[in-house]
Amino acid sequence: MGVYERLKELDIVLPVATPPVAAFVPTVQTGNLCFVSGHIAKREGKPWAGQLGVNMNTEDGRRAARSIAVDLLGTLHHELGDLERVQRIVKLFCLVNSGPAFTEQHLVANGASELLQEVFGASGKHARSAVGVAQLPLGACVEIELVVEVR
Amino acid sequence: MGVYERLKELDIVLPVATPPVAAFVPTVQTGNLCFVSGHIAKREGKPWAGQLGVNMNTEDGRRAARSIAVDLLGTLHHELGDLERVQRIVKLFCLVNSGPAFTEQHLVANGASELLQEVFGASGKHARSAVGVAQLPLGACVEIELVVEVR
Amino acid sequence: MGVYERLKELDIVLPVATPPVAAFVPTVQTGNLCFVSGHIAKREGKPWAGQLGVNMNTEDGRRAARSIAVDLLGTLHHELGDLERVQRIVKLFCLVNSGPAFTEQHLVANGASELLQEVFGASGKHARSAVGVAQLPLGACVEIELVVEVR
Repeated sequence: MGVYERLKELDIVLPVATPPVAAFVPTVQTGNLCFVSGHIAKREGKPWAGQLGVNMNTEDGRRAARSIAVDLLGTLHHELGDLERVQRIVKLFCLVNSGPAFTEQHLVANGASELLQEVFGASGKHARSAVGVAQLPLGACVEIELVVEVR
Repeated sequence: MGVYERLKELDIVLPVATPPVAAFVPTVQTGNLCFVSGHIAKREGKPWAGQLGVNMNTEDGRRAARSIAVDLLGTLHHELGDLERVQRIVKLFCLVNSGPAFTEQHLVANGASELLQEVFGASGKHARSAVGVAQLPLGACVEIELVVEVR
Repeated sequence: MGVYERLKELDIVLPVATPPVAAFVPTVQTGNLCFVSGHIAKREGKPWAGQLGVNMNTEDGRRAARSIAVDLLGTLHHELGDLERVQRIVKLFCLVNSGPAFTEQHLVANGASELLQEVFGASGKHARSAVGVAQLPLGACVEIELVVEVR
């Protein structure tokens, strides 16, 4: 099954890619590697502000991470022209806006990791780091960046 | 216009590259990619300590980020021998020492991003993530690392 | 001297690689680059929880970072089949769970950086960033990820 059929089956509508709010570009490709800029979580088009362990719980964070993964796919679709060009999701870095006692960043990151594997299958399996940060741009609850191998 | 003429026009004097203070090297090249170690902000040759939202504001942070970009160029000039070998600034990662309520890491990072585009033009446009961290080595206010494609 | 003889001389026994606790894989190779997932510090097989500057000091952190480097070698041995395939340690990223006043992340990271140079010699010299984060998965005191060039 193709990537776009898989997205349809998962009932996922890719968002229109929006330009970055600051002085950078959404992706840069070098050789076969595409570096995707950090995407912050959004809800109804606005930054999804919050801090895990303070005013959001792990399940909220998972949902936010999953929604970022959808936005990342929207960006890749727009930048690559065709998601079938994704050979492999190589690396995911998940930054979780975390209160002092929150230690489930890996479960938050799963929201994105699992979606990528649902969409790309084995090609969606990636190396990953997840970490709790003090704050994020615009108070976002989660930010995720990717390295993707393209063909 | 060449990179060095552009630097002159911007009135930028490249610093003498200083060796890392710990057990690592300033850059490693693999294939066409050059990974540049995190550089902390310095002022008058010493670590520029501070925390955004506590004892520094966004404009201070921008200036610190811009000064790191100059230091990164100094390192690249020293390591590559010639800044004209920079094919593309691929990825910038900006770590901002942030108090709990500071959410303008993206504006701080612009200080570095804009300088790279002033110097390299379209080749200076890069993917990026910006994040607020709890602390940085030697109490530095900002730290930035790069991935650069070289020819 | 070969890598395995060097490990023996250093009295290092590689751990059995353990599968990630979440939805990702230990490494992904793309071209000659191997991206290694963030590994958290462990002690007696369990997450080594703690925060630098709160209930751990710099020397504790160094030991934790060194132990992660050993675990990273265990993962690379398992994934590559032979550590002699490591051409170069390209980049190390060290995330230190830090209390508000702890500013020696670079000295903590040295615990890992120095081990990699003891084991691989010049090929172990790497680019690096070290940073203080608010929290880490399972409360771990340190997390480290790598980019490795393989042959």
